Amino acid sequence: MRVSTLTVFALCVGGSIALQNGLARTPPMGWLSWERFRCITDCATYPDSCISEQLYMAHADRMVADGWLAAGYNLVAVDDCWQLPQRNATTGQQQPDPTRFPSGMAALAKYVHARGLKFQIYSDVGTATCEGLPGSLGHFDIDAKTYASWGVDSVKLDGCNANVTDFRKLYTEFGRALARTGRPILYACSWPAYIDIGSTQLANFSEIAQVCNLWRAYDDVQDSSSSLYSIMRWWGGKAGTAMAKASGPGGWSDADMLIGGDFGLSFSEAQMQFGLWAVIASPLFLGNDLRRIDPQVAAMLQNPAVIAISQDSLGRQGTIVAALSNNDVQWWTRPLANGDLAVFAACISDDQGTFFFSNATLSALGWPHQSAHVFDTYAQKPLAMVTGVLSLTLAPNLSQLVRLHH
Amino acid sequence: MRVSTLTVFALCVGGSIALQNGLARTPPMGWLSWERFRCITDCATYPDSCISEQLYMAHADRMVADGWLAAGYNLVAVDDCWQLPQRNATTGQQQPDPTRFPSGMAALAKYVHARGLKFQIYSDVGTATCEGLPGSLGHFDIDAKTYASWGVDSVKLDGCNANVTDFRKLYTEFGRALARTGRPILYACSWPAYIDIGSTQLANFSEIAQVCNLWRAYDDVQDSSSSLYSIMRWWGGKAGTAMAKASGPGGWSDADMLIGGDFGLSFSEAQMQFGLWAVIASPLFLGNDLRRIDPQVAAMLQNPAVIAISQDSLGRQGTIVAALSNNDVQWWTRPLANGDLAVFAACISDDQGTFFFSNATLSALGWPHQSAHVFDTYAQKPLAMVTGVLSLTLAPNLSQLVRLHH
Repeated sequence: MRVSTLTVFALCVGGSIALQNGLARTPPMGWLSWERFRCITDCATYPDSCISEQLYMAHADRMVADGWLAAGYNLVAVDDCWQLPQRNATTGQQQPDPTRFPSGMAALAKYVHARGLKFQIYSDVGTATCEGLPGSLGHFDIDAKTYASWGVDSVKLDGCNANVTDFRKLYTEFGRALARTGRPILYACSWPAYIDIGSTQLANFSEIAQVCNLWRAYDDVQDSSSSLYSIMRWWGGKAGTAMAKASGPGGWSDADMLIGGDFGLSFSEAQMQFGLWAVIASPLFLGNDLRRIDPQVAAMLQNPAVIAISQDSLGRQGTIVAALSNNDVQWWTRPLANGDLAVFAACISDDQGTFFFSNATLSALGWPHQSAHVFDTYAQKPLAMVTGVLSLTLAPNLSQLVRLHH
Repeated sequence: MRVSTLTVFALCVGGSIALQNGLARTPPMGWLSWERFRCITDCATYPDSCISEQLYMAHADRMVADGWLAAGYNLVAVDDCWQLPQRNATTGQQQPDPTRFPSGMAALAKYVHARGLKFQIYSDVGTATCEGLPGSLGHFDIDAKTYASWGVDSVKLDGCNANVTDFRKLYTEFGRALARTGRPILYACSWPAYIDIGSTQLANFSEIAQVCNLWRAYDDVQDSSSSLYSIMRWWGGKAGTAMAKASGPGGWSDADMLIGGDFGLSFSEAQMQFGLWAVIASPLFLGNDLRRIDPQVAAMLQNPAVIAISQDSLGRQGTIVAALSNNDVQWWTRPLANGDLAVFAACISDDQGTFFFSNATLSALGWPHQSAHVFDTYAQKPLAMVTGVLSLTLAPNLSQLVRLHH
């Protein structure tokens, strides 16, 4: 009665042709300011929270001191609102707000690099960023050169204030401008995010994968389980299957920031997001305040068994294999380089009772053996040895991420 | 920019005429099985979670051992699915499932009473309960007598499988049947919950208050912040103002169970629900598993400073005084018996950055003095002394509950 049983459906994953600039061989991991700090520029009222070099330096420090870098999170990502409202009249360059970034971006990059971290900057493919600051349209070469001269390792190029129909041309051109600098710079595009919202037409992910190392798809994540579940339902539909065909080493589908450590998710919901993001090979960008994170949540987000799945060298984006109970119970799998299989199951309904069992046959999961050893990645210990059927305990807002090995 | 300022709107609260059976002089506090355990009847598969005397006995034990009773939670509430699918052919009585309640309901009530707790039973005003078991329609007197003979202290009467247009007559008749037993039995009605869902017409709360000690209003709570926020927006509309006029000692508007300790709310969201439920004088029914609750959440739900507001002898249901930023920031107040004022502020948007200040003038809050001492009930310590304006720090999914005194 509360036991739901898996119905198989077929799963095909093709090869991928990703941007081969030598970067992003596994999904990038880092910290990004947007989810928590948005466009706070009033440093007088909010000295700890405003978009400033202090914010990024403090986070670089925390990433080293609190084990984030050691766990794999090696990128500090600036987002919107670092810029002055106008370009430099003489050089035509974008310029950081000097009151909030008095040392300049090259100095900030150097500070970040000195700690063994990489540095990401933000711009927009259109005339203005989403917050109305100077976009890169018409300035692709000078912006790419400027970022390279600052020592930038990664660029997130947003998609506000441009025509979606021009995206193929514009994102390709900016990518060429980045390549011309001669500096290896990871290229994170927001291309499909602007196509998929409110459209039944999916982006051409294979095409995007030849241009970008990352592509943000679907709506921005917000600080709530309803936002998370909306993303999971979209990823569990045809979009996830289409993206999986395009992604792999060098190019990854980006499901947006991890919001664990913020105010809106319970521990089990934050763990669910982290587990699924590992399975779907999304980049892992922390979107929280690392100076104020709960130690239990921090340990969860540094779990090496989950990160090993995220960073698996085979680079396959996991896909949904079953959606039960009106898509309220999802089962996902991701094949791993050593022949193991990552299996993720989650209940994304708020309208149920307590714990229940959800079952899947090993064959429905695509496991080629009669039996499997089951390793619990959340608890980081062996869970069971099963034959024929894998039964996992779920509850509303709860997930499990296990690793099958022979 | 991130500072929102209070706009006043007028607030009138009339007197109330509540059911005067001597019960519920303050909002009842207890534990109720529905949110977490629903209608799980398969005790072979789910021995710890099925609706059984073991479940209620275990929770009675936990309520005493873990400080819940000492904090004020003194009611153990059975919900749907305790019954057999048919009445006793000889006596016409509802009967508990003998495999799950082998000792019978009188013995369970005795077990609960022996621990200093009260005992609530569940039935339905219609032909069947919401889960399809025998309802009380046509059996009001025998059911009331049966409950009294078992030693029941409180009855929750649900509203499934009956015509809403008959509710006035039916709920009134069942209340008279309870009164005829001669035993003081608290009467919890689901009357307005079935009127308000999907209707623009509000229930006549004053009329209901003359019949019932509690009235469940609006949709059932689910284990998510979106459910909580939906309730808060409804309570913050005209319904809250209408209910506040009807409620007071003897009769309370019931906003449904507290879901802190379940899987779907972050700590700050669970605290927000608890704080607001205290301000609106809702009964406090825990809807979690007391055997598995996080100690930090348990301590939060036992906070004496918050419970003191809930149980304040003046018995005023607090009301919203301002809804800012599209109702995403709510300010609520509740006048207290000693002249203090409870002030609750919350941000129920997931689409914002980090901490920000929200301000209200003391006069807009209805505070009659120029200045106020501000006591932080969550932290249980004095926060500030303010003059003219109260400024509280909020963030998405965060609330504050303070007590002003002169």
